[in-house]
Amino acid sequence: MNYAIVFRLLGDILLCEAALLLLPALTSVIYGEWFILAVFLFTACLCALFGLLLRQIKAKSDIFYMREGFVTTALSWIVISVMGAVPFVISGAIPDPIEALFETVSGFTTTGASILAEVEDLPKGILFWRSFTHWIGGMGVLVFLLTLLPLTGGSHINLMKAESPGPQVEKLVPKVQSTAKILYGIYFTLTAVQVILLLAGGMPFFDALLTSFGTAGTGGFGIKNDSMAGYSTYVQVIVTLFMILFGINFNAYFLILLGKFRRAAAIEEVRCYLAIILAAIAVITWNARDFFDSLGRAVQQAAFQVASIITTTGFSTCDFNLWPATSRSVLVLLMFVGACAGSTGGGIKVSRLLILCKTIVKEIRQALHPQVVAPVRMDGKLIPHETVRATNVFLVTYMIIFTFSVLLVSLDGNELATNFTAVAATLNNIGPGLEMVGPMENFSLFSSPAKLVLIFDMLAGRLELFPILVLFAPDTWRRF
Amino acid sequence: MNYAIVFRLLGDILLCEAALLLLPALTSVIYGEWFILAVFLFTACLCALFGLLLRQIKAKSDIFYMREGFVTTALSWIVISVMGAVPFVISGAIPDPIEALFETVSGFTTTGASILAEVEDLPKGILFWRSFTHWIGGMGVLVFLLTLLPLTGGSHINLMKAESPGPQVEKLVPKVQSTAKILYGIYFTLTAVQVILLLAGGMPFFDALLTSFGTAGTGGFGIKNDSMAGYSTYVQVIVTLFMILFGINFNAYFLILLGKFRRAAAIEEVRCYLAIILAAIAVITWNARDFFDSLGRAVQQAAFQVASIITTTGFSTCDFNLWPATSRSVLVLLMFVGACAGSTGGGIKVSRLLILCKTIVKEIRQALHPQVVAPVRMDGKLIPHETVRATNVFLVTYMIIFTFSVLLVSLDGNELATNFTAVAATLNNIGPGLEMVGPMENFSLFSSPAKLVLIFDMLAGRLELFPILVLFAPDTWRRF
Repeated sequence: MNYAIVFRLLGDILLCEAALLLLPALTSVIYGEWFILAVFLFTACLCALFGLLLRQIKAKSDIFYMREGFVTTALSWIVISVMGAVPFVISGAIPDPIEALFETVSGFTTTGASILAEVEDLPKGILFWRSFTHWIGGMGVLVFLLTLLPLTGGSHINLMKAESPGPQVEKLVPKVQSTAKILYGIYFTLTAVQVILLLAGGMPFFDALLTSFGTAGTGGFGIKNDSMAGYSTYVQVIVTLFMILFGINFNAYFLILLGKFRRAAAIEEVRCYLAIILAAIAVITWNARDFFDSLGRAVQQAAFQVASIITTTGFSTCDFNLWPATSRSVLVLLMFVGACAGSTGGGIKVSRLLILCKTIVKEIRQALHPQVVAPVRMDGKLIPHETVRATNVFLVTYMIIFTFSVLLVSLDGNELATNFTAVAATLNNIGPGLEMVGPMENFSLFSSPAKLVLIFDMLAGRLELFPILVLFAPDTWRRF
Repeated sequence: MNYAIVFRLLGDILLCEAALLLLPALTSVIYGEWFILAVFLFTACLCALFGLLLRQIKAKSDIFYMREGFVTTALSWIVISVMGAVPFVISGAIPDPIEALFETVSGFTTTGASILAEVEDLPKGILFWRSFTHWIGGMGVLVFLLTLLPLTGGSHINLMKAESPGPQVEKLVPKVQSTAKILYGIYFTLTAVQVILLLAGGMPFFDALLTSFGTAGTGGFGIKNDSMAGYSTYVQVIVTLFMILFGINFNAYFLILLGKFRRAAAIEEVRCYLAIILAAIAVITWNARDFFDSLGRAVQQAAFQVASIITTTGFSTCDFNLWPATSRSVLVLLMFVGACAGSTGGGIKVSRLLILCKTIVKEIRQALHPQVVAPVRMDGKLIPHETVRATNVFLVTYMIIFTFSVLLVSLDGNELATNFTAVAATLNNIGPGLEMVGPMENFSLFSSPAKLVLIFDMLAGRLELFPILVLFAPDTWRRF
């Protein structure tokens, strides 16, 4: 393990965070919240101080293997979360440190699970920071760093591999750094368009900005106690559309930018993702039709909730915990599906499920005709054997973490459906679950140990398990 | 597809079933139930008639590939279940044909999920047949056939592969037929020993025999309304021990027969299986200690329920649906673990989970040291790459079937925990679940379509998914 280079990168990350903390500080100035301003400036100074100290470490070599990539990624996310929780604690918004950490991790990992029942009374600066963490975490802090820093020794691709969601990391252009810049460009543009469309619907600028942060990162922290239920149908429809857009593989947008519309429309994962959304909306509309005045309303509400869950955003416009069993089951199912790889969404990812399904079809065909070689293809290209294996290993690891989390959380004594959906909602970075963690409830009911388990799940889910697991492998910490 | 040979084998199976139906007929004679005797004799004649008709078909070739193995296995289980349901319907014990089919499939697949609330009033002949299906299904009808018939053209091993549980089918001795005979010998002997030990505890012969059938097949149909709760502690302890014994890989007994005690004790799967049982008993004893008068009682009750669930038997001595959340979660977890491969138990199987865990450890190590080759071993032997892949495919298929079953069953409108554990209890061939399908409840609450889904799950679970899935592949039905 090349400790020096890992520490130096952590220093960079902390300097970034210090800079990012100036935005909520600015918000506090605008709203005249002087105490909150002091809180953010103090935290920013603290980040900058630690960052500069870590930057003093001199690296003897610039070796940067996958191992260093994993460890840097995992530690970065832990460090920014711990520092990001400081303003919540010292401002008194969330006095308990573990609850503050839960809220911050939930923000950065774009989960959106909250321990707060009341959010409307929070200072504007704090509210801004809470939603801004979604926007930062959506694209990835390290990818952000990549756009800024000239790094050497394989660190670019190994960092990006460790942080990016999905079974395969594709570089859009030969240079990793340029890829990161293009991705951030698309992200920024889409967010800006959403803000403008929300403003056009009469939403105040502050609300529009924070709602767009939550949508772009597929996070889901609401700025109202009833999430999105109080907003107009126009606003809800815009948010529905943008949730779906942010759940699409960003490669599609890149292809559109290059004018390759046909290739963009042919991406199997995107087609499958949209097909699942349409099917889920149809089933829920039919199954929960008695809960709404009109068919149009039923379609609109089903669409919002489906988009919110499959993209792992977690906004809500109604209490789907009251819906009939089939609709609830469909939503639980969507929790695991998740969005496309290469989007800001979480979950298992549509492409992984596609690979798994194709493997099964292949396996049955091979059992029937042992002499036929049937390769697994996606988008016309052969899926490398390594990817299929990694996908399988991912799924198994996922299930093991899921199982033990449910078991540990159940020590609190809550009901099975609550524990099950709480873990599903955090490991998949969604936000709300069912029953006692339903859309109108919050996560404060859990004990501190259970909250720590859920914090682990949120981080493991966002980083797709391995970077976090690697921290527990003794091999990782061996010096070379 | 070599239709002729498949039909001939189905004919053999039906002739077997006709012979097996004479045992419940004999029971009816002993208890003077003349109408029930007529019912069984009529069904036996029907089976014999169909069997002889199918035997008239002349096979042009004796080609018997994996495809024929899968199809014969799947169709055999469906045919014997349909014929096995006839006595329930015409005797009036279960007038509804779908409910009767549910009960029979539950019997043959050794699930033990019942739609009957009252079993004590059933005629003895019917009760005998119900428990006897467990004993037949435990070892497998086709393996039974193998011991009797001289087959040619690769049919032996392909039939055995399709029907036997576990990721790898090992032949104990070079000839498949001899292997089948040894396995049946072990099965028969263990059952006989259990009957004798139960008789020693003062249990009536009829009860001892039927309880042993249910234990040996890891089935779980009780002959009392309260399952095993009314029996003495001695009887409960004996049943606990034998449930655990029947969940062990039969290879271990074969090694013991050969005097290779050390090799038997070194089987990793068996060690892991026993370790899981001990750990689960410890956790539940501690977690549910307030539910029992004494620590001894708590251990004994925990042991019974743990053994019953992990071996997928499904007997119960208390209403574990009332236990605290952690204990319930442990039991739900055990539902998926299942027993050892090569035993009569169901579930995912300990060896599959071992292979999966070892793969993950290997994968993490490989990510950290890409240059190191780390093969996956079990019992000192290299696990073939094919087995690892098949295990992964199994798990994914399992999850897909599980998910869609929960979704379809949820159309009935019951709660999530009921639907989830009902599917878990049938797909893993256990019997009872939680909530409305808890140990003191039954499966009659489901609609007929939901019952058909659960029937599918029981068959898919017992045959380990693929033989049943192959029936749905269009390729399967192509003539050559």
